[in-house]
Amino acid sequence: MMRGGGGLPTLDVSVTRKISDSTVRRLSQYLRILEGRRDSDPGTLSSHELAGDAGTTAAQVRKDLSLFGSFGKRGMGYRVDELKDHLREILGLQRVWRVALLGAGRIGSALFEYADFRRRGFDIVAVLDRDPGKIGTPWGKVVVRDVRDLERTLAEDEIDVVILAVPEEAAQLLTDLAVGAGVRGILNFAPVQLRVPPDVAVQDVNVVTELEALSFELTRSRGNGAG
Amino acid sequence: MMRGGGGLPTLDVSVTRKISDSTVRRLSQYLRILEGRRDSDPGTLSSHELAGDAGTTAAQVRKDLSLFGSFGKRGMGYRVDELKDHLREILGLQRVWRVALLGAGRIGSALFEYADFRRRGFDIVAVLDRDPGKIGTPWGKVVVRDVRDLERTLAEDEIDVVILAVPEEAAQLLTDLAVGAGVRGILNFAPVQLRVPPDVAVQDVNVVTELEALSFELTRSRGNGAG
Repeated sequence: MMRGGGGLPTLDVSVTRKISDSTVRRLSQYLRILEGRRDSDPGTLSSHELAGDAGTTAAQVRKDLSLFGSFGKRGMGYRVDELKDHLREILGLQRVWRVALLGAGRIGSALFEYADFRRRGFDIVAVLDRDPGKIGTPWGKVVVRDVRDLERTLAEDEIDVVILAVPEEAAQLLTDLAVGAGVRGILNFAPVQLRVPPDVAVQDVNVVTELEALSFELTRSRGNGAG
Repeated sequence: MMRGGGGLPTLDVSVTRKISDSTVRRLSQYLRILEGRRDSDPGTLSSHELAGDAGTTAAQVRKDLSLFGSFGKRGMGYRVDELKDHLREILGLQRVWRVALLGAGRIGSALFEYADFRRRGFDIVAVLDRDPGKIGTPWGKVVVRDVRDLERTLAEDEIDVVILAVPEEAAQLLTDLAVGAGVRGILNFAPVQLRVPPDVAVQDVNVVTELEALSFELTRSRGNGAG
């Protein structure tokens, strides 16, 4: 099932077992910063510079990267091209992930239009919906399919990852079908806790949770809101 | 600036200093589970039941809640109504947060249509955009305003929180204006690391980061993708 793949030395994946979610998010952020550099920028970067752009500390940068081996030379900083390649390898981005988008509503269409996905290795090769008014309409190079064809689509199109942008009440059923068809990664926009087997990875995007985290921070910094 | 506020005993906010982001996310999830219970369900809930619905362990539930005082009685479980009130208080949800939505594009409109916000204490009282074709159009009870009126809108409407659903290149400028106008909370959908003073809380929603976290998980569980 592995497509693409680079020529870099193999990382010891056994060391990646205990990597926290926040570490992974920072690695993704470091990669984005490195990718945002211009050709005219220097070819090396210190942990201090990377930390400054990422809103963290140089010690944190060094700690995050040291989990995956030895990068950079003391006093020399990191070589930008090399570190980019390593981060892509760590994050599993040296291949193209084949993605099916379930739900062609507002969120689905906003996601589909986001050109950055393809460039970053996530190729939306199928869009499915249950709305007869949407089924059959072209979205870029794909045509919206009937969600009732989900299992066949997932198999035929060799889908790795499903983006779930459907109403709450449809989310678990579609998840079960996708998992049954061999999908092992789900990006979930439905405000519901999906039940999946342990070998299936789920990332939830829940805006209410984010707002509540913000509310928590604001309440904490202003003192207690009750009273 | 505090609106609403309940009659519950004041929590000791000093203990909330070191609460991790993942703890706050779980608290938000526990609240959602409790809110999803029907009137016909029992009035109490064990940590095991809550853990099962949240996809975590009973020990984790007890640990998370114990950070904020003593809830539940040994062998009796938690009283649903009481725990809901406490969680709302902890998360700062016993008041209404006044929200301005910056950006009336696809993501902005998807967010605006999401009725759950209001019910959960986040009231979008202003929508702003720079598109003359959108300015002046009614969105529910509000009318889309010119983003050039941002500072006046934020002051007049007593905005607490800004949702940033604008292109990357506009994000920092609008952030600076909002912070200058006294906003202390930002939910950021632009794929950029915002620079803000330490007393401003930012939550980022970055779909690429979520997909990369998924890619990391999938690569880890399948073995290394390179080669």
